[in-house]
Amino acid sequence: MTAPSRDECLALDRADPLGRCRDDFALPPGVVYLDGNSLGALPKTALHRLDEVARVEWGRDLITSWNKHGWIDLPRRVGGKIARLIGAEADEVIVADSTSINLFKVLYAALDLRKERRTILSERANFPTDLYTVEGLIRTLGGRHRLRLVEPADLPTALNDDTAVVMLTQVNYRTGALHDLQAVTAAAQTAGALMVWDLAHSAGAVRVDLNAAHADFAVGCGYKYLNGGPGAPAFLYAARRHHAAFNQPLTGWLGHADPFAFEPSYRPAPGLGRALCGTPPVLSLAALEAGVDGVLAADLQALRAKSMALGDLFIAAVEGQGGQRLGLTLASPRNAAERGSQVSFRHAQGYPVMQALIARSVIGDFRAPDILRFGFAPLYVRYVDAWDAAHALIDILETQAWDRPEFKRRSAVT
Amino acid sequence: MTAPSRDECLALDRADPLGRCRDDFALPPGVVYLDGNSLGALPKTALHRLDEVARVEWGRDLITSWNKHGWIDLPRRVGGKIARLIGAEADEVIVADSTSINLFKVLYAALDLRKERRTILSERANFPTDLYTVEGLIRTLGGRHRLRLVEPADLPTALNDDTAVVMLTQVNYRTGALHDLQAVTAAAQTAGALMVWDLAHSAGAVRVDLNAAHADFAVGCGYKYLNGGPGAPAFLYAARRHHAAFNQPLTGWLGHADPFAFEPSYRPAPGLGRALCGTPPVLSLAALEAGVDGVLAADLQALRAKSMALGDLFIAAVEGQGGQRLGLTLASPRNAAERGSQVSFRHAQGYPVMQALIARSVIGDFRAPDILRFGFAPLYVRYVDAWDAAHALIDILETQAWDRPEFKRRSAVT
Repeated sequence: MTAPSRDECLALDRADPLGRCRDDFALPPGVVYLDGNSLGALPKTALHRLDEVARVEWGRDLITSWNKHGWIDLPRRVGGKIARLIGAEADEVIVADSTSINLFKVLYAALDLRKERRTILSERANFPTDLYTVEGLIRTLGGRHRLRLVEPADLPTALNDDTAVVMLTQVNYRTGALHDLQAVTAAAQTAGALMVWDLAHSAGAVRVDLNAAHADFAVGCGYKYLNGGPGAPAFLYAARRHHAAFNQPLTGWLGHADPFAFEPSYRPAPGLGRALCGTPPVLSLAALEAGVDGVLAADLQALRAKSMALGDLFIAAVEGQGGQRLGLTLASPRNAAERGSQVSFRHAQGYPVMQALIARSVIGDFRAPDILRFGFAPLYVRYVDAWDAAHALIDILETQAWDRPEFKRRSAVT
Repeated sequence: MTAPSRDECLALDRADPLGRCRDDFALPPGVVYLDGNSLGALPKTALHRLDEVARVEWGRDLITSWNKHGWIDLPRRVGGKIARLIGAEADEVIVADSTSINLFKVLYAALDLRKERRTILSERANFPTDLYTVEGLIRTLGGRHRLRLVEPADLPTALNDDTAVVMLTQVNYRTGALHDLQAVTAAAQTAGALMVWDLAHSAGAVRVDLNAAHADFAVGCGYKYLNGGPGAPAFLYAARRHHAAFNQPLTGWLGHADPFAFEPSYRPAPGLGRALCGTPPVLSLAALEAGVDGVLAADLQALRAKSMALGDLFIAAVEGQGGQRLGLTLASPRNAAERGSQVSFRHAQGYPVMQALIARSVIGDFRAPDILRFGFAPLYVRYVDAWDAAHALIDILETQAWDRPEFKRRSAVT
């Protein structure tokens, strides 16, 4: 595509059916926020909800809120809402713990269902914490399993009768490359393996239809495109056909069939309740619910269409102004259908370039060694934001504005 | 002791050096709240802090808050504060996940340090989730270990050269009976075992001096006497001498030595940072910090002295009015020094009696099969509250006010 003018972007925003969703977020004025793939923006309803949960439910109704305000049902209730975003039934998704811990649970459950097989297959460029989780699980299980890492293209041939589980993140965190959920799931299952999807960068941003793909297990993150707030609890999906045999290692009281009977031995709850372990962080869960409600209120097809259009526009605007000549290489798939809701460019000075952008209130992030990452959360990012970000990036490169000591100093979180 | 009059209780409150702490909590008027051992009351500062974290840090500063507002340090910072309440050094305590999940980590770490031993020793009446956690861990480790449950009096003789770990909750959740942290730790270690303490009902309420007791590992809860809010994240303690060899199974990105390097393999952080796994729930953690700050602002010796006095007063008031004749049996140690910050009575009609109390705004809780549990959080419970609660209880029993259908109907959370 040819890059539109800034006026054309403003016109696109005026015509955008999702345009008014932006008003539902408390975004700081003057900021182009392209890091919703790392931390989603604050829904205004979350502020109200947090205050209500703290002041009324915790403060006034105290312990009685577990019944009175349904805290006990929160993991299932919010899970049931997320289910609608990922093509699952309400009882197939539950909110609990962190993505990594939920991954530990479903990987254990999957290996338990494939006792005779020993290989967990994944891709080398998977999100590291997923690989660390596998390492920890393998050691815990006594070292009898192995993690095999291959390039995405080699996945089909790497599948064999020792493959217990294929574990993939649907959207690559660096490049935004999108796996074909249905095709990969089918290939894994044809080889007799179970499929575990990490939907961290998918839920709320790209079309996910787990049941249509006959998926087995999935996990995902609450604080990215679901706008659940920093460190929001994560979710866990298990297809209903796996519920009865779903064994997980983190057996705590909230996953018990009768938590308040205080029985001496563990008896798993029927259904996915057994995926719960300890008491959930209610305040964080309440904010997550507000975030999820906001996504559910939007048309999911319109979200995906706008996400693709924003990415296309950004690529066109960067390259149309000579981005390639200035050292930028597109790291994401050019075809929007093969891309999640982010666009990444490589640049040899990626780190200081991103710091210079942030100093101009264009907020993306950097991923080592050289990736500039721009997330386009279609609920609140405008076409003109994509245009402005592209022009700021080009200007910083043309004027070498990134070449200052304060932009080269690394901070704790990059 | 003889039960004081209500006027004498009011005089005790006026003279109470902790009396003004109550104003720091947003307690509902007219409520006698004796369930701070299950969910601590709302500190007013938590409301302010939550609003600030949501509005300013999440909403305005967005992803930059990980550095700008020190989110990345929250688990260590709040852990360091809790350390001061439990006799540990700042780097020996970290906040993460839930109590059950932290227990899973420290039990794994302890078994890993005692590879040649196979028994986890605990008491039959331990909090069930702790026992469930052991069950899950044993199955995960291949069934080579066993959980041995004995009565507290039999612990010393049950220790032998197969005992890898002794796991106990310092304050019994039903009776409030207090283990001697130092003596039990010493006995376990003399037998060559490692000691794991669950401080759920201790931290912020009774004197805990882990390092003076040469403790090995501990976990504890943020939402009871630490007033961290519903489902607040939990804490984990490991003595510094165990840090270098601390292996835990839930290896996630935040426990990595360099989380933002996104290395393909896990490399544990030096020190207790390796006990972290996924991204912490920042909103819930911020509320926890406010709760912990409130406890730290009080004199810990005065807290314990008042806690004991409140319990003594409640027992005297109940028994002085004929509680025993009305079917109440003290389930807690009569000697305050052997008791946590709660008093429990058994009653054959315990469940409806507690519902009748709650209907009169005296909020304790019920634990099957017959325990009425009254927690005395000394930061905000007054002497007159203990007096009023005792009198309401006696009145309900004398008039059989509990004998109504609505009080016998069980709800989801008891």
